[in-house]
Amino acid sequence: MSTTETQPTIISTALDGVTNTQSTPLFNRRTCPPLPLGVAVGAPSENFKTRPAAGKKPARRWDHILSLESKGRKPSNLKGTARYMKPGVLNLCGGVPSSEYFPFSSISTASPKASDILPSSKLQPSLQTLTKHDVADGTSEYDLNIALNYGPTLGAAQVLRFVTEHVELLHEPLYADWAVTLSIGSTSALDIAFRMFCERGTYVLAEKFTFSSTVQLAEALGAKLLGVEVDDEGMVPESLDHILNEWDPAYYGGAPKPFLVYTIPSGQNPTASTQPLERRKAIYAVAEKHDLFLLEDDAYYYLQMDPYNGNTEYNPPQHPPTFQEYKAGLVPSFLSLDTSGRVLRIDTFSKIIAPGARVGWVTGPAQLIERYQRQAEFGTQAPSGFSLLALYNILEKEWGHEGFFNWLAYLRASYTHRRDVMVKACYDHLPAEVTSFTTPSAGMFQWIRVNVASHPKVNQNDQSDAGRQQNLLDIEHAIFESATEEQVLVAKGSLFKTALHKGGAVDYGVYFRMTFAAAPEDQIEEAVRRFGVAIRKEFGL
Amino acid sequence: MSTTETQPTIISTALDGVTNTQSTPLFNRRTCPPLPLGVAVGAPSENFKTRPAAGKKPARRWDHILSLESKGRKPSNLKGTARYMKPGVLNLCGGVPSSEYFPFSSISTASPKASDILPSSKLQPSLQTLTKHDVADGTSEYDLNIALNYGPTLGAAQVLRFVTEHVELLHEPLYADWAVTLSIGSTSALDIAFRMFCERGTYVLAEKFTFSSTVQLAEALGAKLLGVEVDDEGMVPESLDHILNEWDPAYYGGAPKPFLVYTIPSGQNPTASTQPLERRKAIYAVAEKHDLFLLEDDAYYYLQMDPYNGNTEYNPPQHPPTFQEYKAGLVPSFLSLDTSGRVLRIDTFSKIIAPGARVGWVTGPAQLIERYQRQAEFGTQAPSGFSLLALYNILEKEWGHEGFFNWLAYLRASYTHRRDVMVKACYDHLPAEVTSFTTPSAGMFQWIRVNVASHPKVNQNDQSDAGRQQNLLDIEHAIFESATEEQVLVAKGSLFKTALHKGGAVDYGVYFRMTFAAAPEDQIEEAVRRFGVAIRKEFGL
Repeated sequence: MSTTETQPTIISTALDGVTNTQSTPLFNRRTCPPLPLGVAVGAPSENFKTRPAAGKKPARRWDHILSLESKGRKPSNLKGTARYMKPGVLNLCGGVPSSEYFPFSSISTASPKASDILPSSKLQPSLQTLTKHDVADGTSEYDLNIALNYGPTLGAAQVLRFVTEHVELLHEPLYADWAVTLSIGSTSALDIAFRMFCERGTYVLAEKFTFSSTVQLAEALGAKLLGVEVDDEGMVPESLDHILNEWDPAYYGGAPKPFLVYTIPSGQNPTASTQPLERRKAIYAVAEKHDLFLLEDDAYYYLQMDPYNGNTEYNPPQHPPTFQEYKAGLVPSFLSLDTSGRVLRIDTFSKIIAPGARVGWVTGPAQLIERYQRQAEFGTQAPSGFSLLALYNILEKEWGHEGFFNWLAYLRASYTHRRDVMVKACYDHLPAEVTSFTTPSAGMFQWIRVNVASHPKVNQNDQSDAGRQQNLLDIEHAIFESATEEQVLVAKGSLFKTALHKGGAVDYGVYFRMTFAAAPEDQIEEAVRRFGVAIRKEFGL
Repeated sequence: MSTTETQPTIISTALDGVTNTQSTPLFNRRTCPPLPLGVAVGAPSENFKTRPAAGKKPARRWDHILSLESKGRKPSNLKGTARYMKPGVLNLCGGVPSSEYFPFSSISTASPKASDILPSSKLQPSLQTLTKHDVADGTSEYDLNIALNYGPTLGAAQVLRFVTEHVELLHEPLYADWAVTLSIGSTSALDIAFRMFCERGTYVLAEKFTFSSTVQLAEALGAKLLGVEVDDEGMVPESLDHILNEWDPAYYGGAPKPFLVYTIPSGQNPTASTQPLERRKAIYAVAEKHDLFLLEDDAYYYLQMDPYNGNTEYNPPQHPPTFQEYKAGLVPSFLSLDTSGRVLRIDTFSKIIAPGARVGWVTGPAQLIERYQRQAEFGTQAPSGFSLLALYNILEKEWGHEGFFNWLAYLRASYTHRRDVMVKACYDHLPAEVTSFTTPSAGMFQWIRVNVASHPKVNQNDQSDAGRQQNLLDIEHAIFESATEEQVLVAKGSLFKTALHKGGAVDYGVYFRMTFAAAPEDQIEEAVRRFGVAIRKEFGL
C-alpha cells in the first residue's frame, strides 16, 4: 500500500502514549509516522511498531513452499498507479465514487465505557458518532468519507494501527520483519492461507480431531488433513515427529512429506485441550527440525480461563487487571515463541467483539503477509468499512488498549463462569460409567468421550476395521438422535475427524462436542441434564 | 440454508404490498413465507419471489462446465446439523457466542428520507436505530442480536428478501429456478465465479479491453482473458462467433474451446461503451449457438445516463419517477433476456450505496447459486452484519423499494451531470487533431484514443510487431508522465489489455481512461484541461 498521500498534521488522541493503571507508558505512538488520511490509502503495519527491530533476525524465506497460484500473484496494476498521487495532483484514475453519493451522513454506536466494564459489569452505553467530515474538521482520524469508500486491502490504517500495537503488546514477536494484515474473518483467512500453500494431492498435518470446516476446506482444495495424535495437552510432538520421520510417499498416494501444520493451540476445537507452554515449545522444536510452517488458528486465545474449582458462582475480578496481570493469565502463543518466522497466526474479533463484524487479523513474516494481501486484493478485498467504523469507535475512541484489555478480562470471567456451569453439570448429570471428559481451560467447548463397550448396539460379529468403524458411527448416530428426542442438540465427534496416518491406531471412541457459549446461561445445566438422560436411555442405565 | 427455525408471526411493515406513486401494488409481500428470525438462520431467495414460476422452464444444467474444485464442494457438515433444531430444543451444537457478549447495544444510521431525495435533493438526514432486542420486542425483523452474530452464507434473509424483490422488479427473469445470493462485493463474486468455472490453461472470452483486476484475477488462476473485438456498442457478436467457429486448440496451447464469456454490458470498464438491446440479443444468440455461459458484471447498470446535449447545468428530475418511468430508462440486462439460465449476473452496492459496505448480490440458476454458496461457506462467509444493518435501515426501514428507486434516479441525474462536465471539457480542452472519444451513456469512465502517428517518439525503423508494440507502450508512458507533470493522474489503456485471438489485428491505438466519478465536480474541467496541456506538449501542438 502506498503511503504517499499523507497529511501534514497528526491528530492527537487520548491514545498517544497509552498508559496502564500504573501510569507506565506501554508504548509511545508519537514515534510512528502519521496516519494516511486519504481515501483508499493504506499503510503497512511496519509503520505502527514501537519497538526496534535492531538486533533481530529477519524471517526465513518461504518461496519453496508457496503454491503455484500464490507464487504467480502480482500487485494490482491499477493500484500501482497510486504512487504517482502527490499533493496537488487531480485524480482521474481510480473508479472511486465521490463520498457525496453515500446516503449515510452519520453512524453512531453505543458501547460500554472502559471504566464501567470491571468490576461493576453494569455496562452503561456511551455513544460515539462519526460523520463524513470529521477528518476534514480535524476531530477524528477516521470518518465515513474514508470508511465507506474503497479501502486498502490490508484494512484501514486507523484500525490496523490499533491491532498491530495490540499484537506487539501481547506477543512481542522475536524476529524483525513480522507484519499484520486485517482479514475478513478466520474462515476467509484459512481459505487464503490454504490456497497460498496447498496443491491438490498433498497433506496438511493437524490435530487428530479438528475444526470440521477446516477439514472440509482442505478437501475442497484437493488436500487432506492428516491427524497427529492428541492428548489432554493437545497435539503430541512425538507423534508429529514420528509421522514426518516415517513419511512414505507411496503410502500417501505419492504425496510429498508435508511442510504445513494446522493447529488450534488454545481451547482446541473440538477436543477443548490447551497446549501448555512446554508443549508448544516441543512442537516448535519439531517444526524447526523438519522446517515446518505452522498455521496457528487461535480463535479462543482470549477465552483462556481461570482454573475450575467446582464453584459455579459468577466471580468477576474485583478490579480491572493491569496489562501485566492480564497477560500473565495467557499461555504464550506460537507467534511469541517464533524465532524463525515460521508461524502464520490467525486471530479474529468473532469471539471477542462480534462474529457479524467479519473482521480478524493475520500476523506472520512480511513475505507471507504480502502474498496474503496479493490474494485478498483480487478476492475478499478489505473488511467492511461499517465494521471498521464500529471497531474504531469502540477500540480507539471509547476504550483504548487498556479498556480493550478490561473487556477481555470481563469475557474471561464470563466464559470461566459458563465453563464452570457446564463442567459442574457434566459431573452432576452425565453417567460416569460410560462418559469421560477433561475440564477445558480455554475456548467454548466440552468434549465428551462415550465408552460404547456396553452399548446394546455394539456388534461383536463384524470385527473388521470397516465394520467396527461403521458400528461406531451407528452408535454415535443413535445417541445423537436420542439426544434430539430429549430436546438437546450436540455435535457428533465424527464430523471433526481427520485422515489416519500410517501405522496410526484407529480411535474406537465415540465423542460429542457441546458448547457452553451459545445457550442462555440458565439453560446450560438443563441441556446437559437432557443429554445425560439420552445417554442413560441409550445404555439402559 | 435451513428455514426450520421460523417464527409464528409475521411482523407487518410499511413494505407489505409496496405501491408506486400511482398506488398500484408492485408486489404483495404477504404471499411469502415468514422470515426466519433466529440467529444464523437463513432462507433461500425462492421464498421471496412473488410471481409464479408456473409455465417457465427450469435453467439448463451446468455440471459439465464446473471446475474440479467446485464440483467437489459439499455442504457444511456442521451446519447440516441445524435441521435438527426445532422449537424447544436446547442448542449446544454451534460455537456461536451469546449476544450478551457483543459490546454494542445500539447502532444508528442517518440517511435521507425517501421523500427528500427528489426533486429537492436537499438530503435531510433521518435517524434509524437498532438495538439487541428489537426482534424480541416485535418492533423490527432485524436487530443487533441477529446481525452481529454469525449469519447465513446467502446473507441475512432480511436483506436478501429486499434484493430478491428488487431483482424481480427490474429483471423479471424468464426461467423458473433463478436464485439470488448476497456477495461480499463484486471482486469477491468474480473470484468465486472464476474458481467455479476455470481450470488452469483455459481461456475466458471478454471485451478486448476490460477491467484490469479481472485480467489479473484470471492470470493468477492460470487462465487467460481472450479479447473479443469491440466497437462503440461494446462486444461485437460476429467476432465472438468467429473466434469460437475458428477455435484451434493447437494455436491456444492446447486449451479447449472456451465456454465462458465475461462481459461488462453497461458503461464498460474501460471503454465506456454500453451495449444497446439489439446488441445484447445478438450476443445472447451467439451464446445459445455455442452453448456459452455469460458472466454479466454490471456494476454500472444503475449509472445509465440521459443523452448528452452539450448542456452542463445540473438538471435533476422535477418529480420522482414512477417505477415504470425509472425502468424504461435502463437497457434490459442479459439476465432479463435469459431464457436458458446461462447468465450469472453480478451486482454491487459499491457504486450506488457505498464501496465500503462490501456487499453485492449474484443472480443466476439455482444450481450455480448453490455452488456459489458452498464455496462462500468455507471462504468469505456472509457479508458484514454491520453493513447489512446499515442496508436494512436505509433500504427497508427508511426508503422501501420506491425510495430506493428515487435514490437511483437521483444518482442517474448526478452522474449524467458529471459526465456532461467531462465530455464538454474533452471537447473544449483535448486537441481534436490527435484525440478521439465516444460520449459515455453509462458508467464512470471516459476512454480517450490518442492517435500517435505524429508523436515525435514514433519509431519508423523497427516495424516488427514486437517493436511497434513496445514503441506504443513507450509513447503511452511518455504521455502518462507528461500528464502527471501537469498534475493530473489518468489510467493507461494498456493496463486493460487482454490476449489477442488467432487472426486478430494488433490494436496500434494508445488509450487513456479518465473517470468523472472521483474528483470534486468543480475540478473535473481543470483536470481534463491539464491532460489536454500534457498531450499538446507531447505532440508539440
